[in-house]
Amino acid sequence: MALSIVSNNLLADGLKDIQQDVDTAFDLLLPVPGDTRARLVEAMRYAAIGGGKRVRPLLLTATAAMFGVDRDAAVRAGCAVEAIHVYSLIHDDLPCMDDDDLRHGKATLHKQFDEATAVLAGDSLHDLAFEILSDTGTSGDPFTRAELITTLARASGMNGMAGGQMMDMAAEGADYDLQAITRLQQLKTGALLAASVEMGAILGKVAPDGRAPLRAYARDIGLAFQIADDLLDVTGDQEKAGKALRKDDEQGKQTFVTLMGVDGAKDQARALVDQAVGHLANYGDDAALLKALARYIVERDR
Amino acid sequence: MALSIVSNNLLADGLKDIQQDVDTAFDLLLPVPGDTRARLVEAMRYAAIGGGKRVRPLLLTATAAMFGVDRDAAVRAGCAVEAIHVYSLIHDDLPCMDDDDLRHGKATLHKQFDEATAVLAGDSLHDLAFEILSDTGTSGDPFTRAELITTLARASGMNGMAGGQMMDMAAEGADYDLQAITRLQQLKTGALLAASVEMGAILGKVAPDGRAPLRAYARDIGLAFQIADDLLDVTGDQEKAGKALRKDDEQGKQTFVTLMGVDGAKDQARALVDQAVGHLANYGDDAALLKALARYIVERDR
Repeated sequence: MALSIVSNNLLADGLKDIQQDVDTAFDLLLPVPGDTRARLVEAMRYAAIGGGKRVRPLLLTATAAMFGVDRDAAVRAGCAVEAIHVYSLIHDDLPCMDDDDLRHGKATLHKQFDEATAVLAGDSLHDLAFEILSDTGTSGDPFTRAELITTLARASGMNGMAGGQMMDMAAEGADYDLQAITRLQQLKTGALLAASVEMGAILGKVAPDGRAPLRAYARDIGLAFQIADDLLDVTGDQEKAGKALRKDDEQGKQTFVTLMGVDGAKDQARALVDQAVGHLANYGDDAALLKALARYIVERDR
Repeated sequence: MALSIVSNNLLADGLKDIQQDVDTAFDLLLPVPGDTRARLVEAMRYAAIGGGKRVRPLLLTATAAMFGVDRDAAVRAGCAVEAIHVYSLIHDDLPCMDDDDLRHGKATLHKQFDEATAVLAGDSLHDLAFEILSDTGTSGDPFTRAELITTLARASGMNGMAGGQMMDMAAEGADYDLQAITRLQQLKTGALLAASVEMGAILGKVAPDGRAPLRAYARDIGLAFQIADDLLDVTGDQEKAGKALRKDDEQGKQTFVTLMGVDGAKDQARALVDQAVGHLANYGDDAALLKALARYIVERDR
């Protein structure tokens, strides 16, 4: 119980700090220009600043901290991953995609601005991610910068997030089994979560061979995260979630919940988290925040 | 006259070779996967393979060749720039943007597939550009890779192409003067053309100081290219152009042609090309292809 309070405080502080640091960093990265591009940058700010849980930047900075990485550098890299995440939400919310009106408890970007601005703001955040990573402020070592960029570009493109999104679009009315859903979600959600952990290790100069336990942790929490999302869609409170729920059922999609049931999905998510935490055993207390984050991922209400 | 025939052949061969090499490279970069992502990759192939003039890859490879860069590496970097160009066309053609039905003489991507697939295919080509540049096949030197990525990300984002696109959207009905239109076009079209030349020089290990004449060349042809585009919109043959023309007038936009008149714009484009060619004087015959390309940019009919 005492341990749980400590780890809860660690997590609460970690979330509060990263939310503040990411907001501050985006504020500095996105000055509003004095010309007609102002509307574009205001749209980027509307989507990027405030509201997000910042799970990906926290995964990255918590991993980086285990290896003594300078926090500013890790926060910058975290903003790069978050910029990709935010761009993907903007495009996913478009009328031609999921057609959502609500995100983080406020109007989606195309509702607040317009569709064309939303497309462009997403595209510009997409570029911003790579601009951040190629800047020497993220790492003075060009090899590290190149490795960060490779990792993020692969995680977000056709063999990562965007590929998973395409499989998800094809899923409506399709008859995916558990294996297909697992593969889809490993791409759609898992790839970027895994990249967050990987990039923390890259900044920490951990050689690829040494990243195996971190990768195993990331793979397990990636699936647990998506199972929790599927559960939230069925059992969550729309007010707290700040976005439309009950969508999977409306769209007739197979999810972890339709395939395993609510209780089966809960059991599976908890088992994955236990397994994820187990992969970090050798890091001891250094991994306390990553372990607490794994628990949070399945217990969150938004 | 003899010189003109030589340079015409040089250009014709250069265009033919790069069109072939870029198509071959995209074919290899985009294998269709055996799962439900197939539709996404087929859409990427539909947009990326065939049809384009490949002006940007030719600028890049012609510059790189002046400094003895391996052609395969230069073609790869050229494909990265072209992937950005193609993604921007896909998103620009969307109903919420320019709402175009025709591109390179065939149906636009969202007409051939659907809007959601077009958004995702654009996003995935956007990532592909950075995946290509971060691969060691483009350059074994991580510093070069990081510099290529920085250059391309800046040229395509809010301070480059996307920023110019936003200014262009705000231009409908606005009262832009020549200075504002020049600034807009330097971002919207010029940034990516300039990045193409710059990336050729980066691959050629030309130090930033030594790139000044190449940058001056790129700036001038960037403007000339856009003036030629504005002229094509007014005087061109839609069949040859393979896309909708007479759009600027319909949308009530100020362009170089509305501000300078057809003859004034033609004179200005030719003067810019002369000036661009002048910047390359010190390179002599090594720059013959870049010089011929400058002429082509204002004389093309598509």
